[in-house]
Parts: sequence; structure tokens; C-alpha cells
Amino acid sequence: MPQLDFRKPRLFVDASLSEGASVALDRDQANYLGNVLRLASGARILVFNGRDGEWQAEIAGRKRAESLTIEKQTREQDRLGDVTYVFALLKHARLDYLVQKAVEMGAARLQPVTTRYTQVSRVNIERMSANVIEAAEQCGILSLAAVAAPVPLERYLGERDPQRLLVFCDEAAEIADPLAALKDASADGKGIDVLIGPEGGFAEEERESLMRQPNALRLCLGPRILRADTAGVAALALVQAALGDWAGAG
Amino acid sequence: MPQLDFRKPRLFVDASLSEGASVALDRDQANYLGNVLRLASGARILVFNGRDGEWQAEIAGRKRAESLTIEKQTREQDRLGDVTYVFALLKHARLDYLVQKAVEMGAARLQPVTTRYTQVSRVNIERMSANVIEAAEQCGILSLAAVAAPVPLERYLGERDPQRLLVFCDEAAEIADPLAALKDASADGKGIDVLIGPEGGFAEEERESLMRQPNALRLCLGPRILRADTAGVAALALVQAALGDWAGAG
Repeated sequence: MPQLDFRKPRLFVDASLSEGASVALDRDQANYLGNVLRLASGARILVFNGRDGEWQAEIAGRKRAESLTIEKQTREQDRLGDVTYVFALLKHARLDYLVQKAVEMGAARLQPVTTRYTQVSRVNIERMSANVIEAAEQCGILSLAAVAAPVPLERYLGERDPQRLLVFCDEAAEIADPLAALKDASADGKGIDVLIGPEGGFAEEERESLMRQPNALRLCLGPRILRADTAGVAALALVQAALGDWAGAG
Repeated sequence: MPQLDFRKPRLFVDASLSEGASVALDRDQANYLGNVLRLASGARILVFNGRDGEWQAEIAGRKRAESLTIEKQTREQDRLGDVTYVFALLKHARLDYLVQKAVEMGAARLQPVTTRYTQVSRVNIERMSANVIEAAEQCGILSLAAVAAPVPLERYLGERDPQRLLVFCDEAAEIADPLAALKDASADGKGIDVLIGPEGGFAEEERESLMRQPNALRLCLGPRILRADTAGVAALALVQAALGDWAGAG
């Protein structure tokens, strides 16, 4: 486990980071550092941009925070494993939570889909991206998950790379050992898509379409019905532990 | 997977359930059925009490919901596996969430603990119990997790049954295959305690005390730091899949 410094606040900035560089703060960032965290000129924080690793930076400005002076690199840039989290849209508050959790669990790409029983069809991509950044800041993650625009499930299935492993969680699946199923599967370095359906379940024609997909693995997450965000964390935990970067390979 | 009826609302009642019995509704229940769900006399719902399985019931009352007439059993009572979820206290909103998620994941007992770095020391047990009931209602779970009063971590460790397997998640652990570690462990039917520490991590003397426990397994949940509620769902997923009732044995 990397020893992370959680005493210093961590801030995402959208600028190149290198020793001695100066990074201007936008109004939200200046407000957050000065008024929320009550940090003044001279205080030190950590910054990252998703590309250049993590850096220590000093807050500069006559009185309040106006810019950051980049001092030294504290961690090198890392990369996330090739895991795409595909999920049926949920309503606002629960979608926020779902996105944050998927980031913590190491998803590299978030792909919302609409299904027959999905009750939400529009999504605020900017809000999803803000949740990605917030989770990365809080959890010390240096790579930002990419956020894709929602597409209908059928289109996602029609356009996906058939060489990738598709793990889909289905509450109508027979109860069977999910770890044995994952062990028999293999991603072969082609990447993994983890799909969580809507809380109303998949429609029968969607299930048939999923089962026809090449490299598809239908997973049962135990004998109790899980809410979609819980199922997402549980499925990502099993996939990361069995095939991803939790096994020490990452 | 049992085919659950999610079209009908599901209500916890604290009364014995048998064919033909009449169960009075308290004011909150009557309000929920009548004003929130807008159900009138004659409508049918599902009820459970944690002991007698799930039953179909008809709402009775002159105009608004006053009582339930128990009609027929729809599912037999089941039992949860012997998994205790031990967790450092969190603040209100996140604690609500943590409790709901632990119930979904099939924990049979919830044991809050205070640790050196826990920032919360008091807890509203009634609120925790209400969250247990709400999660069970929503997810079709028929057994209610028991809620214990918080104790200091040291006392919990001093009084625990040493024959039970103690899985504790530690972000300071070396990255190592968590599934291999769980596979080598065995609960031998004595029950499993899953312990999630506070977000500040364990103090060094707490970690040493944990490592001295008999039947203790120190688990690493991957290379990223997880928030406590996420770590709980992830750890319970791995434990249920490797040793619990997700493998078809339950």
C-alpha cells in the first residue's frame, strides 16, 4: 500500500505540473482553499492533473489564495487497469454516489446506458465528472476515470469490442459460485467491462442479447437482491480481486 | 435466485403472522401506506416480522388503512449466515448508508466500535435499527440484522469468541491477493467477524492487538484507499463469495 499523505488537502488542477510552475486558481478553487479550508498564502497542499503525478504546492497570493507554486513531486503518475463500469442510469443523488464508488473501486471508464426498465434517460455529464474528481481528490487517486455519454444498452452491445470480457450481474441468474466463474474466465489483457443493470432488472430480450455476446460472463451476486450501487461495488470488488489489480499484479 | 415480488410494497410489522390474523397499524405505518403510497382499504401488500417469513396481507379499514388482514405465506423464513460486521463509527448520513449496505450484503449482526482515530463516539441505536428495517423492506430480506451498542475496539477484541474468524481490512497491509488469503482461511462454521477500521486508519497499538488475535486474517483491499462504507461492501462481497452464502452453499 502506498503511504499517502492524508493530512494535506488534495486538489485537482487542469494545468501542467512541473517544478517551479505557477498555476492560477479559478474562483471556485480559491474559495475552497481560502474560505472552506481556511488556508492562507504560504500553506501547502497536494495537486494532481491526471497526467503528471502528485505534487506538493504552496499557496501564493497577497492575502488570499490566488495561485499555486508547484514545488516537488510526491508521487509518480499511475495508471488504472482497463476496467469499464457500465451501468443503467439512476436518479441524481444515487448516481452521484454510484460514480464516486466506481472511482474508488478503480474503474477507468464510466459508461452509462439506458435499458428497457431504466427510469432515467438524461444525465448531467458535468456533474458526473465533478464526482469523479471529488472521489479522486478524497481517495488519493491520480488517474481520472473517463466519463462517456449515455447510450442505449443495445447500441453499447453492438459497438463494444468483442474481445473484452463482459461481466454482467443478473439477479435472475442461478446462484452459483461467482469466484469460480471469474476464475474460469480470463481477460487476457484485453480489458474488462462490468455491467450492472437497472433495479427493475433486465428485460428478457436484453438478457438474451447479453447471453449471446462473445466473452460474456453472467454473474450472480448472492441470494439477496442488491440495490444497483451496492451491486456495483460488490461486482467491482470481485472482479478486481479475481482478475484486476487487487491481486498484487497491478 | 428467489423470484421476489417487487411490485407490492413490503412492510415490517412487529406482530406474529399467521393466516387470518389481524395486525393493527401504528400511525406511521398507516400514514406510509395511505398517504405516501396512496393505498386504500382492499389493497394488498407484503409483510414480514423477521420470524414468520413473508406474507401477503390486505389493507383493512373503513376508509383509510387501519389494520392488515394476513392472508397467505409467500416466502418461508430464511436465516442469515453467521457474519458480524464490526465497524468504526461514522457520522450520521454516512452511517445510515453503511448500515443499509451491510444489511444488503447479508450481515447478521452490526457491531459499532470506537477506535483511537474514530471521530464519533455516540450513536443513535434506534436510527440504526430503522435503517436495518428500511434496507430489509427494500431488498426483500426477511431476517433483521441485530444492532449492538458501540464498545471500544479493545473491549470488543477482549470479549470476542476466539474461535470465530476475524477478517480485518487494513490499508497499511502489503498488497497481496485477498482471495488467496480468504481461501486459505476457514470459518469452520464458527462464524465470521468482518472489521472495517476508521478512515484515519488503525493506531499502531490497535494493529498489533489485532494481529495477536487468534484466527485473525489481515486483508488488503487493493492499491487504492477506500472510504469506510465502500471498504465494507467490498470486504463483505469477498467474504460472502469466498466463505459465505454467495457460493451457493447458503
